[in-house]
Amino acid sequence: MDNPFGQHFLGIEGLSPHHIESLLDRADNYALLNRSRKTPRTLLRERTLITLFFENSTRTRTSFELAGKRLGADVINMSVSTSSVSKGETLLDTAYTLNAMRADLLVIRHAHSGAPALLAQKVDASVINAGDGMHEHPTQALLDALTIRRHYGKLSGLTVAICGDILHSRVARSNILLLNTMGCNVRVIGPPTLLPLTITKMGATPYYSMDEGIKGVDVIMMLRMQKERMQAGLVPSSREYFRFFGLDRRRLNLAKSGALVMHPGPLNRGVEIDSNVADDPVQSVIQEQVEMGVAVRMAVLEKFSQIKAQP
Amino acid sequence: MDNPFGQHFLGIEGLSPHHIESLLDRADNYALLNRSRKTPRTLLRERTLITLFFENSTRTRTSFELAGKRLGADVINMSVSTSSVSKGETLLDTAYTLNAMRADLLVIRHAHSGAPALLAQKVDASVINAGDGMHEHPTQALLDALTIRRHYGKLSGLTVAICGDILHSRVARSNILLLNTMGCNVRVIGPPTLLPLTITKMGATPYYSMDEGIKGVDVIMMLRMQKERMQAGLVPSSREYFRFFGLDRRRLNLAKSGALVMHPGPLNRGVEIDSNVADDPVQSVIQEQVEMGVAVRMAVLEKFSQIKAQP
Amino acid sequence: MDNPFGQHFLGIEGLSPHHIESLLDRADNYALLNRSRKTPRTLLRERTLITLFFENSTRTRTSFELAGKRLGADVINMSVSTSSVSKGETLLDTAYTLNAMRADLLVIRHAHSGAPALLAQKVDASVINAGDGMHEHPTQALLDALTIRRHYGKLSGLTVAICGDILHSRVARSNILLLNTMGCNVRVIGPPTLLPLTITKMGATPYYSMDEGIKGVDVIMMLRMQKERMQAGLVPSSREYFRFFGLDRRRLNLAKSGALVMHPGPLNRGVEIDSNVADDPVQSVIQEQVEMGVAVRMAVLEKFSQIKAQP
Repeated sequence: MDNPFGQHFLGIEGLSPHHIESLLDRADNYALLNRSRKTPRTLLRERTLITLFFENSTRTRTSFELAGKRLGADVINMSVSTSSVSKGETLLDTAYTLNAMRADLLVIRHAHSGAPALLAQKVDASVINAGDGMHEHPTQALLDALTIRRHYGKLSGLTVAICGDILHSRVARSNILLLNTMGCNVRVIGPPTLLPLTITKMGATPYYSMDEGIKGVDVIMMLRMQKERMQAGLVPSSREYFRFFGLDRRRLNLAKSGALVMHPGPLNRGVEIDSNVADDPVQSVIQEQVEMGVAVRMAVLEKFSQIKAQP
Repeated sequence: MDNPFGQHFLGIEGLSPHHIESLLDRADNYALLNRSRKTPRTLLRERTLITLFFENSTRTRTSFELAGKRLGADVINMSVSTSSVSKGETLLDTAYTLNAMRADLLVIRHAHSGAPALLAQKVDASVINAGDGMHEHPTQALLDALTIRRHYGKLSGLTVAICGDILHSRVARSNILLLNTMGCNVRVIGPPTLLPLTITKMGATPYYSMDEGIKGVDVIMMLRMQKERMQAGLVPSSREYFRFFGLDRRRLNLAKSGALVMHPGPLNRGVEIDSNVADDPVQSVIQEQVEMGVAVRMAVLEKFSQIKAQP
Repeated sequence: MDNPFGQHFLGIEGLSPHHIESLLDRADNYALLNRSRKTPRTLLRERTLITLFFENSTRTRTSFELAGKRLGADVINMSVSTSSVSKGETLLDTAYTLNAMRADLLVIRHAHSGAPALLAQKVDASVINAGDGMHEHPTQALLDALTIRRHYGKLSGLTVAICGDILHSRVARSNILLLNTMGCNVRVIGPPTLLPLTITKMGATPYYSMDEGIKGVDVIMMLRMQKERMQAGLVPSSREYFRFFGLDRRRLNLAKSGALVMHPGPLNRGVEIDSNVADDPVQSVIQEQVEMGVAVRMAVLEKFSQIKAQP
């Protein structure tokens, strides 16, 4: 099986439609194996996967840990608070250290855009980007795409609205890249201060009104309002934000009938999404996204099983 | 093998004497296998066990982790401090997320009574209560019972005194339920402020004097004084507490000759128990309790190996 | 295969040259197996290894975790912050608890010299010292020796300079013991306040000038300046320290041509070592030290695979 990533997986940028479809096909297969508890424990046998998270995360870290274990890898979790980083070690020295221990896969999340790419230049291990600053979060975009494809049978031609703080969101950035590659119509909805100036060049149509932007779409992707990424003084109040850009039942009804509701989690209930909508048994696919997250990460990790180990 | 718990294991309440005896039999068997390092690694193969601890714990979490690994499960530890909970995610959303990742077993400890029962209503995974608020800590009661049964060959007819802060203790509550079910005579000893008003209805005889309550008993269960669970202003001083309700050699001698000394740990040496008694090579079975903890949890987890996995 | 340690591995002290050579031979073999991803997963099957770190560490803890997993052990990490220690449990009670759970190997790091030896007297499990106070860090000395031997083909007759805070360094202490046992000439370099008064008796020649001490040596071992171990008021400024005892290119050139540059990590770049020297592609073997760390720990753990498990 060919590997679209080369030695590392840093982002959606550069992937072809064929690569993406073939990844989603493999992930679909892993979703089935996860459900029947019959995962191929030998694929990454003797391989070491280290998760190196400089930002906290439940679902992404756990999802990679499960994906690695279900493929038979040795998985080691490295969290910053208990690591040498707290003794002032540089990111690169930490990476060199893990590399020297014959890590095969470094799954990294970092607050700085480009940190995984920097590491990738310096280590023999394969680097997998689990979210870097405001840059990319490629496995999130893949799991979102897989979830959509499972419901509509395809991606091309669908209209997808991504709503919220687009400017600071690596999830939005990876999704815009992927959805454009697959022939979707992408809209972004948010206040002007939270949309990038270059949004049109990125291939998305901006809407400043939720009611307008959501009209007739097939998929609504809500983003988490991430106050920690915003500059002080520019943080809207939760109540105000919800009034203008939150998703409730009335607004959902403006979308195409049966439109999917998505959210990368964790949810701020009542801030960007109403519980009534988040928990809709038919239209909300938020839990399916989590499930597909494990499957997609297995499909990604699988691509590295054939790479010759660092000798 | 039939499963007395149904899909979840939330408490001792509702278990029959037959169920309890059969669990203890299986745990006895696992204690032997642990000692000979021959544990059945295939029983939970391909199953995912997630420990979700909202309160710190060494022995309980580690004990479940070892039990799971020795039965072949993939074990993932989730501690609150590094999880999305710190981003404000609700308990239920955390549970939904883990469930969607095809967790088979969620072992939860939570400060609120009833949190595991709440989860159990909402997820497909089996929920195991590892201690919830002032409600139950069922595997602790089982390991205590197993330890007693190994020494006396039976439970029925024995007189057991539980000493300390009964009011705030889930350990006491689960033990009272189990010991009554098995036909023991249960005494509770403590200051009136630390005994529940309904203690007689619960099937235990209250004693306000340690010297009185301990007289002639077969087993003394000391509880940890948990200042963190008491209301401010009602916390006794350690010295005063020890004088009235601590266990020392003189008091131990008031019990039946050879009476067992038990404690769920971690010990507050010199607060509720004297080191001389805690370390008694014959009468103290505190370390055996820990050993039986792993065995009992294996017996509990085993019951879920036959449950059809969430499809 | 005979076991030079007996039941525990607490320090370099007492090991014979034959024992050390034979450990390094085994570690050399494990280094090869690590590179080819063909490690003997059955050697510690059914054995439980618990890492008990009372001081933070990335490389040592991870290195032991990998070593254990690559030999097939169940590995459990216990960090202090989430353990019962924070509830005031004593070190011994924690050890008793882990012992009762049928841990076979306790890998301990502790701020107090002698803590592992204390534990070793009290538990059935084998205790492995991963660094105790200012006493020993034996696996570090072994991995350093292995790294040197791989480059020079032997240890005896080499001149090794250990530079920095010798007084507070368990790394220095274990290295002086090992290098003397193997017939090296050992120099220590540092300010008089950071050299032990008994340094000559320990078998090392003191130098107070870096330029003097480094002259003609085969190996330079830099130590991390550990401010946390020094008494307040005695901490030198980083700039001043570097001027007198830091390793830069000019000083490196005073050593024998091709002399090895070593550092136990994590690096304080610009404090005790210049980046230009630390990253020298030929003379710096800092990453090889990390790699040999895993191999050496596998060789050590292997010695305990034949010990009869605590029944």
